[in-house]
Amino acid sequence: MDGSSTAGDWTMADDVAVVFTPSGRRGRVARGTTVLAAARMLGVDLDSVCGGRGICSKCQVAPMEGEFAKLGLTVAADALSPWNAVEERYRAKRGLAAGRRLGCQAQLIGDCLLDVPPESQLHRQVIRKAADARPVAMDAATRALYVEVAEPDMHAPSGDFERLAAALARDWGVAGPMAGPAVLAGLQGALRAGNWAVTVAVHDDGRGGPPEITGVWPGFREGGLWGVAIDVGSTTIAAHLVSLADGSVAASAGLMNPQIRFGEDLMSRVSYAMLHPGGAAEMTRAVREALNRLVGEVAAAAGVERAALVEVTLVGNPVMHHLLLGIDPVELGHAPFALAVGGALHLAAAGLGLDALAPAARAYVLPCIAGHVGADAAAVALATAPDQSGELMLVVDVGTNAEILLGSRDRLLACSSPTGPAFEGAQISAGQRAAPGAIERVRIDPVTKEPRIRVIGCELWSDEPGFAEATAATGVTGICGSGIIEAVAEMRMAGILDASGLVGPAVATGTARCRPEGRTHAYLLHDGTPPILVTQGDVRAIQLAKSALYAGARLLMDALGVERVDRIVLAGAFGAHISPLHAMVLGMIPDAALDAVTSAGNAAGTGARMALVSRAARRQVEALVGRIEKVETAIAPRFQEHFVAANAIPHAADPFPHLAAEVSLPAPAFNAGEAGGRRRRRG
Amino acid sequence: MDGSSTAGDWTMADDVAVVFTPSGRRGRVARGTTVLAAARMLGVDLDSVCGGRGICSKCQVAPMEGEFAKLGLTVAADALSPWNAVEERYRAKRGLAAGRRLGCQAQLIGDCLLDVPPESQLHRQVIRKAADARPVAMDAATRALYVEVAEPDMHAPSGDFERLAAALARDWGVAGPMAGPAVLAGLQGALRAGNWAVTVAVHDDGRGGPPEITGVWPGFREGGLWGVAIDVGSTTIAAHLVSLADGSVAASAGLMNPQIRFGEDLMSRVSYAMLHPGGAAEMTRAVREALNRLVGEVAAAAGVERAALVEVTLVGNPVMHHLLLGIDPVELGHAPFALAVGGALHLAAAGLGLDALAPAARAYVLPCIAGHVGADAAAVALATAPDQSGELMLVVDVGTNAEILLGSRDRLLACSSPTGPAFEGAQISAGQRAAPGAIERVRIDPVTKEPRIRVIGCELWSDEPGFAEATAATGVTGICGSGIIEAVAEMRMAGILDASGLVGPAVATGTARCRPEGRTHAYLLHDGTPPILVTQGDVRAIQLAKSALYAGARLLMDALGVERVDRIVLAGAFGAHISPLHAMVLGMIPDAALDAVTSAGNAAGTGARMALVSRAARRQVEALVGRIEKVETAIAPRFQEHFVAANAIPHAADPFPHLAAEVSLPAPAFNAGEAGGRRRRRG
Repeated sequence: MDGSSTAGDWTMADDVAVVFTPSGRRGRVARGTTVLAAARMLGVDLDSVCGGRGICSKCQVAPMEGEFAKLGLTVAADALSPWNAVEERYRAKRGLAAGRRLGCQAQLIGDCLLDVPPESQLHRQVIRKAADARPVAMDAATRALYVEVAEPDMHAPSGDFERLAAALARDWGVAGPMAGPAVLAGLQGALRAGNWAVTVAVHDDGRGGPPEITGVWPGFREGGLWGVAIDVGSTTIAAHLVSLADGSVAASAGLMNPQIRFGEDLMSRVSYAMLHPGGAAEMTRAVREALNRLVGEVAAAAGVERAALVEVTLVGNPVMHHLLLGIDPVELGHAPFALAVGGALHLAAAGLGLDALAPAARAYVLPCIAGHVGADAAAVALATAPDQSGELMLVVDVGTNAEILLGSRDRLLACSSPTGPAFEGAQISAGQRAAPGAIERVRIDPVTKEPRIRVIGCELWSDEPGFAEATAATGVTGICGSGIIEAVAEMRMAGILDASGLVGPAVATGTARCRPEGRTHAYLLHDGTPPILVTQGDVRAIQLAKSALYAGARLLMDALGVERVDRIVLAGAFGAHISPLHAMVLGMIPDAALDAVTSAGNAAGTGARMALVSRAARRQVEALVGRIEKVETAIAPRFQEHFVAANAIPHAADPFPHLAAEVSLPAPAFNAGEAGGRRRRRG
Repeated sequence: MDGSSTAGDWTMADDVAVVFTPSGRRGRVARGTTVLAAARMLGVDLDSVCGGRGICSKCQVAPMEGEFAKLGLTVAADALSPWNAVEERYRAKRGLAAGRRLGCQAQLIGDCLLDVPPESQLHRQVIRKAADARPVAMDAATRALYVEVAEPDMHAPSGDFERLAAALARDWGVAGPMAGPAVLAGLQGALRAGNWAVTVAVHDDGRGGPPEITGVWPGFREGGLWGVAIDVGSTTIAAHLVSLADGSVAASAGLMNPQIRFGEDLMSRVSYAMLHPGGAAEMTRAVREALNRLVGEVAAAAGVERAALVEVTLVGNPVMHHLLLGIDPVELGHAPFALAVGGALHLAAAGLGLDALAPAARAYVLPCIAGHVGADAAAVALATAPDQSGELMLVVDVGTNAEILLGSRDRLLACSSPTGPAFEGAQISAGQRAAPGAIERVRIDPVTKEPRIRVIGCELWSDEPGFAEATAATGVTGICGSGIIEAVAEMRMAGILDASGLVGPAVATGTARCRPEGRTHAYLLHDGTPPILVTQGDVRAIQLAKSALYAGARLLMDALGVERVDRIVLAGAFGAHISPLHAMVLGMIPDAALDAVTSAGNAAGTGARMALVSRAARRQVEALVGRIEKVETAIAPRFQEHFVAANAIPHAADPFPHLAAEVSLPAPAFNAGEAGGRRRRRG
């Protein structure tokens, strides 16, 4: 029975009409055809892992009944064959929602209208949480396939693997698969334990090579296959455990990059590699161990066995990228900043020492953009899609280095700017990483100059009742990145800080919270144990960081010949917590309407997740990286110029009409000389 | 300048005629074209590793001068451009034979006749030593390619690997290569050390996947690339270090399979795996260690660095094959004798724990034929090519198991027969492996019944002057496989043994060398310290082994419906030393004309070498294995019948007219009962 035999005669008594929603695909098929077979004939996206054996329930459909005038269809109550024993067994054992049928069991008896619910679509769209997310259609490189394999026959000898390959070709069209020693070693046991039925993980990266079997389990495997998306940052490493069946995130975890002990920022790690023989290898070992620990953590949290972790995607800046791969990053430390390899890499995860994953797991390393703009930036570009935007978008991924993208569907530019770790709370006197007890939000009353704070782990503001009790356990321990940004911006708005970044004395600012601190002043943000102060040094550190960030963005705007941008997207775990207003007061970003500044959350991690569940996304990011025009801040003469001009708070380089409409900034001058100097430059 | 622009006008003044020998390819090319460019235009097989830069000298040609009437060609003395500085530098530094030119330097000035010597042909034929060898055209999966890579440019950033890939595509047509972490880690150093010129090893197995870079060296690499062909036998492992440029063998070595401590024969190793948890893994470790040792040995012998060992091919019987791959061989121990995997395997050598090779080296495991007929038999079939024979060929690979092939270009059958290790000197009272001091040749005077022997390591027979001195260092320590076969056959021809295999007493045989030994008799082969005897038990062990071998051959003849074969090829290191006459007297093989019995040497090793240097040979053996009809001796009822009938010496199962014409065998009967019993069966 096939579609072509019925196509010629639309009035054949043995044909029935069938319409699938939401695809709208329709046709006539022979009476008695199963729903799954009809879907395949008509090219309807209906999932199946067990190949139509009533085991996996992935092919569920919801039949509809009644008169559908627009479709010219009348569907009787008995349009499908009666509920059968396989469906009943499945319902009793695992549950089947009312109104659902198994597509491999139900046969078309009369004209039918069938809805394929999202969870039954193989290429269903995965909707991310963030508002500006773009949906990704599931298209993972690794699929779970259930097959029944012929038993060995002494009279026609062939290997178990060869019979498995034949079954995969027959049932799933998998041509000429290969398997490595790890999988081959487990094959015979699985086939016999499963009574000649197995579920296999088949990886096909779509590059034309043979598909690879990366896992094998007896019988029908419940629990699906999993991948891990990892963002290797200079300071923190984040991992997400993602279902390769539906793209859902089952667990996430992060930890400090243990390479920090070799150097806080990228250049100090490159120096460590240069100055210590074997130093690069030491850092490679450290990061790989951390990755294995992290993978073990997310897998344990979600109760997923190691063998089911069949894929990993990796992003990171160029130095992290090279160290992870086991490449000495020394060339990244000096001009011309040559990457050893920039393109996307398809590797065996075991080759990267990732032994917390399945032994045959595959790794996909996203491409780097340039020697200073890494795979993390590529992932951000993939997730935020400026290349598909009609508006001019500025995307800023704030971390130890800021990755900056500027462009639209016409052109896209990228650079990296060495902000240093101040935005992550480092180099700040009371700085700490984002953890319970850290001050993350700050408001300062412009009249009383009294602060209100919020700390991570507590929903209350410090002036609300119960704050002291709620924070008793953690205490108020320091300031994290978003906290210091808000503190400095609020100090500027309250007149505690002037445009040059000078902290005023109590006499000038009118608050005793401004205390002498050596030859300068500091603002007492929280009078606890310990007292938490924002010092003049802290403000200077933030000024350096934000100037670098702004100068990078400005350099790209120069290159594109524009004076303003339509939208600004703040990415990075930290970007998610920055208030757009405060960022703009600080002068981190160019002036824009406040509602045009949004957060994309951890966009690098999102990009890694997209590449994990979608081969199309991999092709996209690879093409995208080729299109991006790279701007090297280290050799651009105007970078220094922009950097200096951006030192003021807010930056003095460009007008900021949007910001001016939102807040009126006082213009104190605690030190006429310094502030005046800035003003002259501005004029 | 390209071929097509000159093709239309054969009289253009700027064209010259060129003829290449031995290919006979000819055409006209623009005057001034280099010989190498002309060869490429005309599809002439002229090698080049450096891509025409006067570095590698692979493109040498021998110009000829004079009147060549048959070719319609007159070649002047100045037909080629004058000897140039590059050629002079090459000659001075490395030597260039008189009459040779570098094809990349010499330009065609007048009509030319150019001979491409064999060593300048990329796909030159490799002629093996054995008489029945078939030549193999060089077509290794891995090639050394020299490229000059663009330097990094900060203004158009790209990875060093991407620029290498671009150079490979431009100069060599290598499309979309990949590289793993091991190669990427060494890339930047090599490019800089080589001043942006490198030699890379590029592996392309021709299966459609991306080519892989498996090695990188600064500048032009002297010394070529190497592969190792390994035959993993139950008792011995043999390795050959083979040049991937010309197929030559630079070193060979062998060692005992360390798995012997887990069991002498295959079934005892399978039992060990069944009875000891972790036993299979233990044997896998043992064989991999041995392989690494062996690879290290051949590499050291030839002075080849580890990084240049970029390929390995592996053959072995199914149990050795599985243990090497890390697969528990337990399923091979009982019906239906299912292989975990039978097809050819393309693997990373590192995945097999072969760390004596280059880190990115590739491994090719030849396909197995069936559960009892392994990749060693497939390699024998590849090397001896019965599938291309017009005559009916019987190929016997004698080892602990005998692999037997029978057929011609019409049909090809295979089986394995459990001969046991007697043919390798085991289970023989004075048996030992083939090593200096072992008796390898035996002659017994039919009149005096006095023996003459030869031992390994000495060219003299024992009755020649100087034998005692020549063997003083080693002594005469035992009998190896070929020695015991000759001894038993000679004893039969001298009337010391009757047709049933009974050793006669001194009174019946007329020699005091026949001594009582328990309830039977033994023949004193060598009266030394220790005395070396051929006991009744030894004869029985050989009878069992040879019966199994003969029964296997006979089973295949039954299956093919033939009563005789046209040619017999004895393979195996041991097969090389068996005298055809003695093998036939013993009844190991069917009757045939003596000159139709030849040795193919270590054909399994030869097959492994062929697969190492030729992708075509890989395709051939893969196709061949699919064509072979497998006969399972363990379940064939007639095998036992043939086995019993083959017990007599010579076998009593079939007439042996050729043997009868060569020797007349006495028919003593030392024990009427036993011998008579045999005779009755024979009638």
